[in-house]
Amino acid sequence: MPTPHPDRYFASDPTQREIARELYAAANEHPIISPHGHVPPEWLAENTPFTDPTSMLLTPDHYTNRILHGVAGVDLADLGVPVGSPMTPEKSRAAWRLLCENWWAFRGTAVAGWLASELSDVFGIEVTPSGQTADAIYDSIAECLASDEFRPRALYERFNLAVLATTDDPVSDLRHHGALAADPTWSGRVIPTFRPDAYLEPVRADWLALTEALGEAADQDVSTYAGHVEAMRLRRRFFKDMGAVSSDHSHRDPGTARLTDAEAERLYQLALSGRICPDDADRLRRHMVNDQARLACEDGLVMTFHPAVARNHDPKAFARLGADVGGDIPMETEFTNNLAPMLAEYGDQPNFQVVLFTMDQDVYQRELAPLAGYYPGVYVGAPWWFLDEPDAILRYREQVTPYATFYKTSGMIDDTRAFASIPARHDVARRIDARYLARLVAEHRLSLEEAREVAVDLVTTIPTRAFKLS
Amino acid sequence: MPTPHPDRYFASDPTQREIARELYAAANEHPIISPHGHVPPEWLAENTPFTDPTSMLLTPDHYTNRILHGVAGVDLADLGVPVGSPMTPEKSRAAWRLLCENWWAFRGTAVAGWLASELSDVFGIEVTPSGQTADAIYDSIAECLASDEFRPRALYERFNLAVLATTDDPVSDLRHHGALAADPTWSGRVIPTFRPDAYLEPVRADWLALTEALGEAADQDVSTYAGHVEAMRLRRRFFKDMGAVSSDHSHRDPGTARLTDAEAERLYQLALSGRICPDDADRLRRHMVNDQARLACEDGLVMTFHPAVARNHDPKAFARLGADVGGDIPMETEFTNNLAPMLAEYGDQPNFQVVLFTMDQDVYQRELAPLAGYYPGVYVGAPWWFLDEPDAILRYREQVTPYATFYKTSGMIDDTRAFASIPARHDVARRIDARYLARLVAEHRLSLEEAREVAVDLVTTIPTRAFKLS
Amino acid sequence: MPTPHPDRYFASDPTQREIARELYAAANEHPIISPHGHVPPEWLAENTPFTDPTSMLLTPDHYTNRILHGVAGVDLADLGVPVGSPMTPEKSRAAWRLLCENWWAFRGTAVAGWLASELSDVFGIEVTPSGQTADAIYDSIAECLASDEFRPRALYERFNLAVLATTDDPVSDLRHHGALAADPTWSGRVIPTFRPDAYLEPVRADWLALTEALGEAADQDVSTYAGHVEAMRLRRRFFKDMGAVSSDHSHRDPGTARLTDAEAERLYQLALSGRICPDDADRLRRHMVNDQARLACEDGLVMTFHPAVARNHDPKAFARLGADVGGDIPMETEFTNNLAPMLAEYGDQPNFQVVLFTMDQDVYQRELAPLAGYYPGVYVGAPWWFLDEPDAILRYREQVTPYATFYKTSGMIDDTRAFASIPARHDVARRIDARYLARLVAEHRLSLEEAREVAVDLVTTIPTRAFKLS
Repeated sequence: MPTPHPDRYFASDPTQREIARELYAAANEHPIISPHGHVPPEWLAENTPFTDPTSMLLTPDHYTNRILHGVAGVDLADLGVPVGSPMTPEKSRAAWRLLCENWWAFRGTAVAGWLASELSDVFGIEVTPSGQTADAIYDSIAECLASDEFRPRALYERFNLAVLATTDDPVSDLRHHGALAADPTWSGRVIPTFRPDAYLEPVRADWLALTEALGEAADQDVSTYAGHVEAMRLRRRFFKDMGAVSSDHSHRDPGTARLTDAEAERLYQLALSGRICPDDADRLRRHMVNDQARLACEDGLVMTFHPAVARNHDPKAFARLGADVGGDIPMETEFTNNLAPMLAEYGDQPNFQVVLFTMDQDVYQRELAPLAGYYPGVYVGAPWWFLDEPDAILRYREQVTPYATFYKTSGMIDDTRAFASIPARHDVARRIDARYLARLVAEHRLSLEEAREVAVDLVTTIPTRAFKLS
Repeated sequence: MPTPHPDRYFASDPTQREIARELYAAANEHPIISPHGHVPPEWLAENTPFTDPTSMLLTPDHYTNRILHGVAGVDLADLGVPVGSPMTPEKSRAAWRLLCENWWAFRGTAVAGWLASELSDVFGIEVTPSGQTADAIYDSIAECLASDEFRPRALYERFNLAVLATTDDPVSDLRHHGALAADPTWSGRVIPTFRPDAYLEPVRADWLALTEALGEAADQDVSTYAGHVEAMRLRRRFFKDMGAVSSDHSHRDPGTARLTDAEAERLYQLALSGRICPDDADRLRRHMVNDQARLACEDGLVMTFHPAVARNHDPKAFARLGADVGGDIPMETEFTNNLAPMLAEYGDQPNFQVVLFTMDQDVYQRELAPLAGYYPGVYVGAPWWFLDEPDAILRYREQVTPYATFYKTSGMIDDTRAFASIPARHDVARRIDARYLARLVAEHRLSLEEAREVAVDLVTTIPTRAFKLS
Repeated sequence: MPTPHPDRYFASDPTQREIARELYAAANEHPIISPHGHVPPEWLAENTPFTDPTSMLLTPDHYTNRILHGVAGVDLADLGVPVGSPMTPEKSRAAWRLLCENWWAFRGTAVAGWLASELSDVFGIEVTPSGQTADAIYDSIAECLASDEFRPRALYERFNLAVLATTDDPVSDLRHHGALAADPTWSGRVIPTFRPDAYLEPVRADWLALTEALGEAADQDVSTYAGHVEAMRLRRRFFKDMGAVSSDHSHRDPGTARLTDAEAERLYQLALSGRICPDDADRLRRHMVNDQARLACEDGLVMTFHPAVARNHDPKAFARLGADVGGDIPMETEFTNNLAPMLAEYGDQPNFQVVLFTMDQDVYQRELAPLAGYYPGVYVGAPWWFLDEPDAILRYREQVTPYATFYKTSGMIDDTRAFASIPARHDVARRIDARYLARLVAEHRLSLEEAREVAVDLVTTIPTRAFKLS
């Protein structure tokens, strides 16, 4: 594997490529803002060295696991899945070999590009992964990981991160964020994100326990629905005080319909008694999400929606290995009618802001761009998960820009727990944005000066505004 | 703002660009046919000068308002919305400044291209809009508007319009169309379009009043459903006699299911009594739309369908400012099953013709192209509203042509009430059509001679056939 | 019509075009694998000469008929439809003239490209079809057809076919396949495909008769549901013994939900008694499809799904001319939830393999690529029917590759009953695959060596693995 080509992902048309190079260079003078992701905050708080190449680069990356399993037929357990499984040096090396031997399976995927960048840019690897080179690559990376330059904080600096958001449980004490804030030797910005999903799903078997935990964390009686809302208000406030700028919401649908207070209370009591039916649980959940918007008008946390994934689609793998092992499949979704109740109530509130993510690209031009183009507080989230590869990012710009404009998009979101992939992922987004802008310039739809401004705005003011980061 | 570039919107690939130039030039030897739009007929009948730049170019253009509101945070009321609000010279100038100061917000949108063309081609403006240039631009345009060359009829000639269709209420006396027809000094063609939507929605609060007005206009008893249909028949006939070639239908869904006569009568009586439920109102509406198709087989008016918009999505803005202020959001739609009853009954009638528009681009290749490719009377409408920007028009051709062919599309529809934007909008469509054809030629899928014929057909015979304009 | 250009369908960008040429040449060193189609096996078994140009090239090609009918207004009956109508030399020649006179109607379609290739490559025609050239072309082809070189077996050799699959009724005795196997002068591979659709649709008027025929063919009592399954098991086994590698399933939806045994038996008895309602018939059908998957785990036949077509959308044409005359319209579909029950049960079985086809391209990136990227036994089928034209094939690769990879796609499927169009159809797919790969190389996302391997894999190992052809 030669060093990744400096012009990768740009159009091959010479006119466009030259413009893209210039725009990309302008954007690259600025650090990375990562306002939504899943890196564990303890990595930075404790600054513990990564133990081995597989635990750092392979096991936590469900993109890579998925392809090795579905395309190359590898057993997920052989990759160290689930995260936290006992790992020996032999097992780690064997998993790494599976990755290298099956390098062919990644042809044409974004994962191949990210991994190539990580290996080359972060670890200086110059050979193509294969059965022959697996051990040598493994040893090189392991050697790197033993040095202080590859500890989490050093990488944070080297990756040129300006902000890194984590995703956190509402009852978390956020002690790692607290420790970082209190550490005079640390000057980075690692902020929590309030993710109450599980607490808003009365259909879950563990919902009652979660509700009790919420009440305890907030020191608030949750025997009434009003108490539940108050507990949420208190926890959101705590998160905000600890630096959070957003809350994250990922349910099967983005429904936000309001119930009457009496009906909400009735369903809440049913839920507490464990006798709520699935349809009523959905109705209560949509009401609760709507109430998060009400709270957001007060505390100003930006809402992010990530709906419509059939999680744990493979029940046998879920039973054996747990969640987040690659067996999640997107579904169709709908925003225009689902969000109407929430936007009717809060869409004109100055403090209200929502970023809408989707894996159903059909809604980009049909629903999301029109919503963001009309409501001042609505933003279109960057391409997410099964849409975060180069061509899909390009389609996103093509479909969203004409009616939402660049200025009502969120900026790049890496959404990753694979720490070392953050620079590679942002790099691809910057390249594709430069490519899209270059085409507009080459087609005389935007001047070069305007395009340069937009390229910089996309990595500075635009995410700052969408996530209230200033 | 320099003059818009002569090659704008063409591909940057030199081979394709050179062919596109030639095809575009061939199309441009022909005048503009505008068979569906919203310009008020009194503008041409009375030929009154436009009063000021804002009332002419900004207030009636909900595309521009939407971006200023949703992206730049401008209050819609400050733009003169709704049309007909009291307007002073100061307010007009202040609104114009808001447009110019927020010119950045339009980057990458079709609106920027249209406005640039209007300013440059119609008014000779050579500077880029900004806070600094706002007043000078305003004054230049105002000066133009004071001269006879900028009255509506002079612009009609200058825009090289061959046909301009308006959209009219079924009870309208069409006196402006009559006045134009009777005027020996006028040689243009301004034709009405029959738009009965509101009269086919028994769920509306004003439906009873509308029904009474319909009966009066038709001089027909409408106390039975048969009477209602007869009144429609008479009004359609009147429109046809006044030059109409089409009727327009825009409901939440494109349903066309037929009821039994007894059931239709029963629901109609329920509607008259004000006691029809929303579901039954929808069933009756779909039956009524189906009956419009029956009437069309008789009088030959082409039906156009524009379904699936959630109108007035922002109820607070609707309460304050009324309809058509930018707060409309598209929805998913479905044609294959919704149209099946109508096509089963009338799809083989020689006089029956329907043009299907959508803002849900998913149906282009999946449903509309197959329907138009099979049924001789079905045409695929040009990209509409949230799909009328350059890249979306290109996707339309890519998705529709392979199975509907060029010859079962409608030709360009501007659908605008912003009179001065008509040439700019048709120009973009012609450029994108030339670009698409040029690609087919460059990829050896069509000869240059064929492409030249198609480029001309797309602005001459194709709209003429789709709208029965000859 | 000059000879089709050697660079047709490649991008016009010179960098990409040069790479595409090389990749296409590499693929073209390999024969055609056609694992799903509708050529009648008796053509090869009996090797009867084709009677006339129209019966060979026009009447059986519903793509061509559809355009002549829907775009040019030709009566389907004048094209010899339905297949098997009495055909005279005069009628054949007149139909051919209709094709040639309306050659303009095919501009920009895949059909124009296929027909041009057929006329040029198979029959050596060098003139463009038109009213003037119709008779000369007809005579040239007729002369060819009289010679032995144009008999089916000679064309099979000349087309360089390695495998040709037919589609067959479960009660067929497969005598033509048997005859070919027993013929020492025949060295080709013509394999049957098990298509039980009609037998799994208890809503059909003829379902009881079909069920009886199934029982007879299998020599199995089918008075219970278990007996029905056993009859299916036996017929599948027979097909497998005769060379079949797959079964084909085309219902309105891809539902696969399992009933309890008791409920299945109850519904089966209702169906036998002719009293099953449409909803229950659908539930039973989905259970039966699920049981086909169960049987597949045993016998290893690959399942192919082709769902979501509204067949015979035009009931008047269906009454007059029967099925398969062009009046079929695609519908929206959904796989994530519909396949969940089947994949939960059989998705981890080593013998289980399913290839998912769609005409709803929305599901490529949203559902099919994620499913194929996760489940080892799931493959994404090649673009089908209303998606089999060049640009749609390109979109398929763009949307499927990033998450399913090249290696979980099916390879080209021509799905045709127009025998002479097979080489032209595979040629287009090879060209578009080369074009897509060339872009990845030009954008430095894949090395030229990798791309060359993939181009060859796509026509060799990939279809072989997806259809278990080795």
